[in-house]
Amino acid sequence: MTPMNAQWRLAARPVGLPKPSDWKYVEEPAPQPSDGQFSVQLEYLSLDPAMRGWMNEARSYVPPVGIGEVMRAGGLGRVVESRHPDYEVGDVVSGLFGVQRFAISDGSGVTQVDTALAPAPVHLGALGMTGLTAYFGLLDIGRPEAGQTVVVSGAAGAVGSVAGQIARIKGCRVVGIAGGPKKCDWLTEELGFDGAIDYKRGDLRAQLREQTPDGVDVYFDNVGGEILDEVLRRIARGARVVICGAISQYNAEQPPKGPANYMQLLVMRASMTGFLVFDFAKRYPEGVAQLAKWLQSGELHSREDVVSGSLDEFPEVFLMLFRGENTGKLILQLTEEEV
Amino acid sequence: MTPMNAQWRLAARPVGLPKPSDWKYVEEPAPQPSDGQFSVQLEYLSLDPAMRGWMNEARSYVPPVGIGEVMRAGGLGRVVESRHPDYEVGDVVSGLFGVQRFAISDGSGVTQVDTALAPAPVHLGALGMTGLTAYFGLLDIGRPEAGQTVVVSGAAGAVGSVAGQIARIKGCRVVGIAGGPKKCDWLTEELGFDGAIDYKRGDLRAQLREQTPDGVDVYFDNVGGEILDEVLRRIARGARVVICGAISQYNAEQPPKGPANYMQLLVMRASMTGFLVFDFAKRYPEGVAQLAKWLQSGELHSREDVVSGSLDEFPEVFLMLFRGENTGKLILQLTEEEV
Repeated sequence: MTPMNAQWRLAARPVGLPKPSDWKYVEEPAPQPSDGQFSVQLEYLSLDPAMRGWMNEARSYVPPVGIGEVMRAGGLGRVVESRHPDYEVGDVVSGLFGVQRFAISDGSGVTQVDTALAPAPVHLGALGMTGLTAYFGLLDIGRPEAGQTVVVSGAAGAVGSVAGQIARIKGCRVVGIAGGPKKCDWLTEELGFDGAIDYKRGDLRAQLREQTPDGVDVYFDNVGGEILDEVLRRIARGARVVICGAISQYNAEQPPKGPANYMQLLVMRASMTGFLVFDFAKRYPEGVAQLAKWLQSGELHSREDVVSGSLDEFPEVFLMLFRGENTGKLILQLTEEEV
Repeated sequence: MTPMNAQWRLAARPVGLPKPSDWKYVEEPAPQPSDGQFSVQLEYLSLDPAMRGWMNEARSYVPPVGIGEVMRAGGLGRVVESRHPDYEVGDVVSGLFGVQRFAISDGSGVTQVDTALAPAPVHLGALGMTGLTAYFGLLDIGRPEAGQTVVVSGAAGAVGSVAGQIARIKGCRVVGIAGGPKKCDWLTEELGFDGAIDYKRGDLRAQLREQTPDGVDVYFDNVGGEILDEVLRRIARGARVVICGAISQYNAEQPPKGPANYMQLLVMRASMTGFLVFDFAKRYPEGVAQLAKWLQSGELHSREDVVSGSLDEFPEVFLMLFRGENTGKLILQLTEEEV
């Protein structure tokens, strides 16, 4: 008997925060793999701020998700049927499988996952795109040097928490910006950040001044908006501002707010550079090997915020990202037993 | 008999466009050089948009001009008295002599000018800081490659007109943005730009699209504001945005408008980098030699917009910069005969 698939398909271009009605929940018989394909049953969905951007119809680094198409998302699951020579039933794989229960793949962009190395969710976190984004963004774009001050925004988020820890491992003074005392305590007490700034406390400028007495050499930005503007006021000569994301702006109904203090780039002979992890694809093995080493030595902590539930909860769980409700990597674990 | 000096001293921090009353015109006996100093009679004053920034009390790359201090400005003049071993009466020199008739100097930051190489004003233009700013900003920060598209804003201004020509010499497709058909015609017909965009015509987006069919690889920005935002929409993958200035914002009474489309830096894996010519001081000889070579071969045109007048006209002439009234390097030639 063919199992039933379930999918969230994009139904509308969201205005502001996505509503459940911006997607359509569809159930239908699971597709069967053709020659050279295999079928994956998804066990974990990666929930990422970038997904919000993919819902917009705007020039970006990937085409937008089309109306009627399955919502794009990373995920991890098990091969349940295979007509592909390199994949066997039972293999654990990760890739851009979409927000659905079953996905068909020809192996493009798919990674075989070694769950002996680390539990499955870690392969969507510190050992997955999340960790690689932090690794290449911080080290290749930010180029921090030991003793320099690195500030990370969205520091309690998936990418930010890894980026900050890598900076710490590299001998930098690391200051994380996050929302609320609980996240801030986690950064300093569990992850070894040198300082944390609670942007919800409101005196961002004073907190930044206090935490970065020598200015900011590298700013790894996940949030944009006012926080980016405030950090620009503190950049040191020759600073590198790494643009990884701008979560504060993703749901803006007005045109996004640009960094009014960008002329500090001139004053401080500094740069602001955007990057995409995909451009480092050839070096993923290097990144994964290094991240795995740090995980095993205990220098790097991977935290996944795993919400167990069923696929139909996706729209609600996704919004946790924009409400600042997750700490570490947000993952929806599909625990329902329906097949 | 001691000649009389005249000076414009800063009297107030301007709000918006500077008013004459933001300076105070002072006449007093010219100072006499001490041992190790010399006295310069100014013949040409360099009028630069950056001077507006020096009037503000804000963190910048040089301290602000203090209230009561002589307004800072570059200039060129003749040594009229010397107690310095390296300078003789009659030497032509350029340096930051200030907005005054006579300046005392110990030689710091002063350049001996060879008027056989080019007329005096050219040494404030293409062979001076203006040309060097274009040279290092475009080549070292912008790193244009032959065949790439380079867009320059403020293209009919002092730095922009040189930057665009250097890009043309390097084999790039060069598009200049300027205000009004006269300036635009000058760019394409006299300076050899491949295209010109008249931002005053208003359909900036459409003009940009038409003139940069393959996107923008290097954007040399002198203006900021809306034009920067529009060009960001057109940047190509790996583009370099060079922040040289932001003249549209210098007199803003509101906080400056940041580039709302800065996330295109991420989408296009691009960078936005500020620079200051002073950081290239060790390489000035290289820059001047190359610029002089291009001038002599006719590949590079230097245009100076020389206003002849007396020192008391400074505030009025200075405003030409912000009204877009100059083409090429704006210079106030001091023709009065009072001593």
